[in-house]
Amino acid sequence: MSFELRTVSGGVTAAKGFLACGMPCGIKRTGRPDLALIWAERPARAAAVFTRNRFRAHPVRLDMARLRQGVAQAVLINSGNANCLTGRRGYRRTLLLSKRAAKILKVPEYRLFLFSTGVIGIPLPADKIEMALPELVEGLSREGAGPAAQAILTTDRVRKEIAVRFKAGGRTVTLGGMAKGSGMIQPNMATMLAFLTTDAVIGLSALRKALAESCRRSFNHISVDGQMSTNDSVLLLANGLALNRAVRPAGRDFEVFQRALDFVTARLAEMIVSDGEGVTRLMKVCVRRAASPDEAERVALSVVNSPLVKTMLSGGDPNWGRVLQAVGATRVPFAPDKVKVSFDSHPVFAKGERTRYSRSKLKGVFKRRIVPILIELGRGKYSCEKLGADLSPLYVRVNARYGT
Amino acid sequence: MSFELRTVSGGVTAAKGFLACGMPCGIKRTGRPDLALIWAERPARAAAVFTRNRFRAHPVRLDMARLRQGVAQAVLINSGNANCLTGRRGYRRTLLLSKRAAKILKVPEYRLFLFSTGVIGIPLPADKIEMALPELVEGLSREGAGPAAQAILTTDRVRKEIAVRFKAGGRTVTLGGMAKGSGMIQPNMATMLAFLTTDAVIGLSALRKALAESCRRSFNHISVDGQMSTNDSVLLLANGLALNRAVRPAGRDFEVFQRALDFVTARLAEMIVSDGEGVTRLMKVCVRRAASPDEAERVALSVVNSPLVKTMLSGGDPNWGRVLQAVGATRVPFAPDKVKVSFDSHPVFAKGERTRYSRSKLKGVFKRRIVPILIELGRGKYSCEKLGADLSPLYVRVNARYGT
Repeated sequence: MSFELRTVSGGVTAAKGFLACGMPCGIKRTGRPDLALIWAERPARAAAVFTRNRFRAHPVRLDMARLRQGVAQAVLINSGNANCLTGRRGYRRTLLLSKRAAKILKVPEYRLFLFSTGVIGIPLPADKIEMALPELVEGLSREGAGPAAQAILTTDRVRKEIAVRFKAGGRTVTLGGMAKGSGMIQPNMATMLAFLTTDAVIGLSALRKALAESCRRSFNHISVDGQMSTNDSVLLLANGLALNRAVRPAGRDFEVFQRALDFVTARLAEMIVSDGEGVTRLMKVCVRRAASPDEAERVALSVVNSPLVKTMLSGGDPNWGRVLQAVGATRVPFAPDKVKVSFDSHPVFAKGERTRYSRSKLKGVFKRRIVPILIELGRGKYSCEKLGADLSPLYVRVNARYGT
Repeated sequence: MSFELRTVSGGVTAAKGFLACGMPCGIKRTGRPDLALIWAERPARAAAVFTRNRFRAHPVRLDMARLRQGVAQAVLINSGNANCLTGRRGYRRTLLLSKRAAKILKVPEYRLFLFSTGVIGIPLPADKIEMALPELVEGLSREGAGPAAQAILTTDRVRKEIAVRFKAGGRTVTLGGMAKGSGMIQPNMATMLAFLTTDAVIGLSALRKALAESCRRSFNHISVDGQMSTNDSVLLLANGLALNRAVRPAGRDFEVFQRALDFVTARLAEMIVSDGEGVTRLMKVCVRRAASPDEAERVALSVVNSPLVKTMLSGGDPNWGRVLQAVGATRVPFAPDKVKVSFDSHPVFAKGERTRYSRSKLKGVFKRRIVPILIELGRGKYSCEKLGADLSPLYVRVNARYGT
């Protein structure tokens, strides 16, 4: 399938009919921006993927319920406070904030979605958000995408935005997004949030299917420290203003949309992994020839989260024994003689022993920003890829110092 | 049950009828001791527990087969080389070493057990071991326990030995042991080995049952970096020279023996965790009121291996949100409002929110060598305890620097 994709500027307001704004409202003591609003001029279909952590932040609980309706018009995000684990009072306060915000924004409450990221366990200063809302609404514009992308950051060093334009269903369609999450150094649980907007005409089931699949390939495919936040969320809005032939849950139009979405989510996921302070090197772990998708994933996760593999990566040393230890620890019943491990295109272990590899070439591979680690299990036809980060002394220092 | 236990010196030769020796044979380039022999003057019953890593070192494969006979007389251990992942040639060479060593030691081959620890993937210099064997046999003595305990170390900083004496079946019984393993800094897979000897009269099934249970409570209850080595082994020999009434797999004698064994393995396990370079603080994670033993263990492991909890411990900061995140990530279907978390005797989280804890008291708890973290799930009656270590910048530095 030939398919053209053009990167454009504009982030979350690149698609027709979306406005945004970002500003400080006083949650962060530093006075940095901590409140963002995305506004759909025309109500949009909404799909989302949420954290699977059993402890969920208050806004996540609220959003999950609202998502059943599948319509969104306003997305209100604060940083600096996760609005999480603050008991029933905290939840009631969140419901009240939602009611008041919907009134100020003049939207039915079920079309308003709330998101939070930051420290947990501290009551959300909801009054600060309420007081800032009129000014936030006033400030909505197409130019607001950048400030909004800035306002959702916590320990991130850089803004994470992207947008693409492509042809689908006879029209030009735009899809954009923004994300936050800085992996390794994330002091309170490596929360990641992503907000995606498109003007495509697409049915709710197609939208949900495309997002679930895309998350699986992107955000669920990165692992920085194996932690799962209480607030992780990905939201996708589609307002239909591109007037394309409706994208259905299968067929060529769907494929095109899926590819565009995959491109956007993959780029945002990469930005998240790369932004971790203390990250000096990444690894792309590819498991091949597993007997099932689940088995492939278990092996990939074991390797990408192994502290011994992560420190090996940080030190730039091709210590393949550590990779094998992580593979073997999964207890997948492979035949040890049939397992093959390669760093990039250089096999280092096969037929139960080390190969005659060139140590200097391997040293070269370990100098790269992304080190490819290929593990072939010799059992079946299933694969899995994970993008991971190294473990550096800086990660430990930053996370040890961070105060509650 | 009242029960008296006296700690005595002598380690692996404290029990009657066991001799040992340790010496350098040239595997370690530093010239430090790297070869040890334990000798049972009278053939002993043998039980063992081995690594569950799918990749197993050559001697482990060999020992597992021999263990079916359940009799041991000689235990030959080398450090400096793991004798692992060196292919079929490596395995054949191990079989040859076993044959030659049995001849020199004058024991039927099935009564000889081999163990290795050190770097993996490098062929074992078996000739060095063979050449040193006559001198090693010559040196066997009751005073050899210390040198043997020294010779099995790799990156450990201290020798790990213990022995106890107690009454069982109408006689005085002695049980001793030695171990190696230094947790965090272990460059090649945190291998742990433990060798236990007793003069108790005890049947093979009772011996196996007691060891399995004891390992579950001690070595399987520590977690330093969540890694499982290719060489992990625990061996227990009983030669019957105490002439006590035979210990059967149940009853009071068994209980006494089990307690003594538990005491010895728990102490050795603690020594292993404490010896990790870079370890500044330990945590004892107790999960209570889980719906099943498996569930309790999953939660305990998730907390004890969480990098965010480990760095919190290293920084000495009571950041309870990180503990909850690790609990929630297991996806055990608990009711969030029923979960309670305490640091030592101070509850920090209950009924869905933080308690009114005293920050200064918590700071005090985090200054201790072992920080107790109690997690109550409010689901059932099952418990699990794990002893873990913090994650310090030194761990990362040592493991990043270590060369293949």
